[in-house]
Amino acid sequence: MKSAGIISIGNELLSGVSLDTNSSWISRQLLSVGIPTISIFTVGDDVKIISDTIKQALNKADIVLITGGLGPTDDDLTRHAIADVLGVELKLNDELLSQISEFFKRRNIRMAKTNNIQAYLPESATALANPVGTASGIMADYKNKMIVAMPGPPTEMMPMFKELVLPKIEKYGHGQVVLTQRMKCFGTGESVIAEKLGDVMARGKNPLVNCTVSGGIITLHIVAAAKTKEQAEDMIAGEKNRICGILGDIVYSKEEKTLAEVVAQELLKRGKTISLAESCTGGLLAKMLTDVPGATGYFTYGWVTYSNEAKISQLGVNGDTIDKYGAVSEQVALEMAIGARQRSGSDISISITGIAGPGGGTEQKPVGLVYIVIYNGGAKKIHKFVFPHSREYVRQRTVLTALNLLRLEFKD
Amino acid sequence: MKSAGIISIGNELLSGVSLDTNSSWISRQLLSVGIPTISIFTVGDDVKIISDTIKQALNKADIVLITGGLGPTDDDLTRHAIADVLGVELKLNDELLSQISEFFKRRNIRMAKTNNIQAYLPESATALANPVGTASGIMADYKNKMIVAMPGPPTEMMPMFKELVLPKIEKYGHGQVVLTQRMKCFGTGESVIAEKLGDVMARGKNPLVNCTVSGGIITLHIVAAAKTKEQAEDMIAGEKNRICGILGDIVYSKEEKTLAEVVAQELLKRGKTISLAESCTGGLLAKMLTDVPGATGYFTYGWVTYSNEAKISQLGVNGDTIDKYGAVSEQVALEMAIGARQRSGSDISISITGIAGPGGGTEQKPVGLVYIVIYNGGAKKIHKFVFPHSREYVRQRTVLTALNLLRLEFKD
Repeated sequence: MKSAGIISIGNELLSGVSLDTNSSWISRQLLSVGIPTISIFTVGDDVKIISDTIKQALNKADIVLITGGLGPTDDDLTRHAIADVLGVELKLNDELLSQISEFFKRRNIRMAKTNNIQAYLPESATALANPVGTASGIMADYKNKMIVAMPGPPTEMMPMFKELVLPKIEKYGHGQVVLTQRMKCFGTGESVIAEKLGDVMARGKNPLVNCTVSGGIITLHIVAAAKTKEQAEDMIAGEKNRICGILGDIVYSKEEKTLAEVVAQELLKRGKTISLAESCTGGLLAKMLTDVPGATGYFTYGWVTYSNEAKISQLGVNGDTIDKYGAVSEQVALEMAIGARQRSGSDISISITGIAGPGGGTEQKPVGLVYIVIYNGGAKKIHKFVFPHSREYVRQRTVLTALNLLRLEFKD
Repeated sequence: MKSAGIISIGNELLSGVSLDTNSSWISRQLLSVGIPTISIFTVGDDVKIISDTIKQALNKADIVLITGGLGPTDDDLTRHAIADVLGVELKLNDELLSQISEFFKRRNIRMAKTNNIQAYLPESATALANPVGTASGIMADYKNKMIVAMPGPPTEMMPMFKELVLPKIEKYGHGQVVLTQRMKCFGTGESVIAEKLGDVMARGKNPLVNCTVSGGIITLHIVAAAKTKEQAEDMIAGEKNRICGILGDIVYSKEEKTLAEVVAQELLKRGKTISLAESCTGGLLAKMLTDVPGATGYFTYGWVTYSNEAKISQLGVNGDTIDKYGAVSEQVALEMAIGARQRSGSDISISITGIAGPGGGTEQKPVGLVYIVIYNGGAKKIHKFVFPHSREYVRQRTVLTALNLLRLEFKD
């Protein structure tokens, strides 16, 4: 079986200023086509050290993947190091130079002289196009092995890897296919999910089920190894059904979707429109629902009524209600939802009012207290939560919870 | 100057299941006592590969720090590898064994036999106590160099490093202090900044200036090495002033602030309030301005007028203007800003209308076309942009640009 070595380049990685997430991502991609990574190296911006490390990686691995050091400044030395390993010179590539000039021209920006270096390639190497930036990737053969260099920024590296590098690497795979697919859960903790799943999450299984958590969203990773892609896909599909049977509504997507994407899909499918009245989340729910392309199909009006006057003048909340119960109360939340739906004419409205903190909490109304109203059809449902932790956490968790409540509405 | 090499051990790191955050954390700690990390290695659970990597790291570095592979299972092989490097045997340490038994007894848990191995140490090595778990660390001398192994879980590694390892390492540092501070720029590219800064960014300088980019925000890292903390701080302060003198308004923060924080600070300082009328950014600008604690002090009203009807009914945009010029036009942007300011009574309003994509673009109005109006005092300034790339990029860049335009208003 062929194997890979990964090298991440940059002083900022060695000083702890930046965290190397590229290597982990690349190793997952490689594993999906059956290629294990046997070592990962992080080195600084030094041409001798970089070329030594490439040579060392080539000793054991068949494919060496490098990220970083392809920029236009003096500390970008990956192209020089590859030339050194190959024993060739750097040579100006006219086509690359015109692509880079074109990149700046299209954006109406002056091209700095330093960008010229990005048009130089080691002789015998080929360029990998970068539609997002000026740093082309580099691909070279070395004694039947493969050297690939890609830019460091993940937004440039990832599409280059998927579109240009992975297809070439797949041919090296020979035999076993390892596929990973993910499904998404919300509404309970990791340990509860592990308990419910029991043996499904046992080690050493095939398919293997792993679990990671980020911002309240629980991702289940299902890894299947098989002779063919179709077999692995079948195994994963079976395991997904089994998991859905156990977890039920906790699973919000059998694919890698966001909660907003799932809700958007349901709204579009039902031809329903939605309006939002946000206070403490300050537009975050509107932002999430409009992250999804085609949001014009379901999203009509959003209000960020941060002040009491805004709640009164824009949503028709009664000033007396605010005086009597406070801006953070189920009564005000209810009037916000009613106002939003009436004024927008939408099918559904969601209102949110709460105390995101760090200030503004009292004993009766602590930081983290949030009311969410879902006004759908004839029903106005009031939900009350007290979320812990920071301002960011409260806002994020509130918005995800609102999306999840709306998702569950569609299950009825 | 002494230097360090870091080795992270574990198959889960090579398969991308776990992200190695230990190395980055350790390298920051080391730098704070003047020890640069010259290489980071990630290898799997293989005793030969681990011992080869330790030897290799010792070739160049004076201190080799290892995390992972100290657990009780068969794939925990760090102690064996260190014994191999030192050319000694593993030996049962009675004191360690009783500590481990005690650990289980205190928790009223049966001790598995496999845990015995954790009481074995390479001869000549010393144990580092682990109050949090059963995996002791290992410290050994090797030809005037230092080998340190710590458990992989950050919650066990971090206290062990701080309490037991760092004090020993500090003696190697020869009194040098290395400080890093950051400053933030927006409004131009990395290469233009590098060109303007010229020698300021030369390699091998002290203080050293590095540059990283993320989402359009350019961060300059200023690293100074000196005998005392005060000297290093003075050097950084001087370099920051020099950079500000060259880059001028491109620098938006001499500290590590977000653009929204800087704008919020200016609004509060001036006692000005702001309202927002967003179309294509769908609440993202409101979200960013309310990310900052205390946003009630300056933020009043926000509208997410995604549909034409919302623009008309909520902001008083003239339907004829939309018919004549389209929703994405400077005329509509202008009426949105005027409506927002009139209806909210705020001192300043910002309006945004554009085509975030991926659909909806035409030849005359391509995806990425955005109008931003800043209505401040008597002046209404209309800004037109065509941002490239994805929906997410267009939305993100639009909002940062709006914040930056407002920041520059305050410079006048």
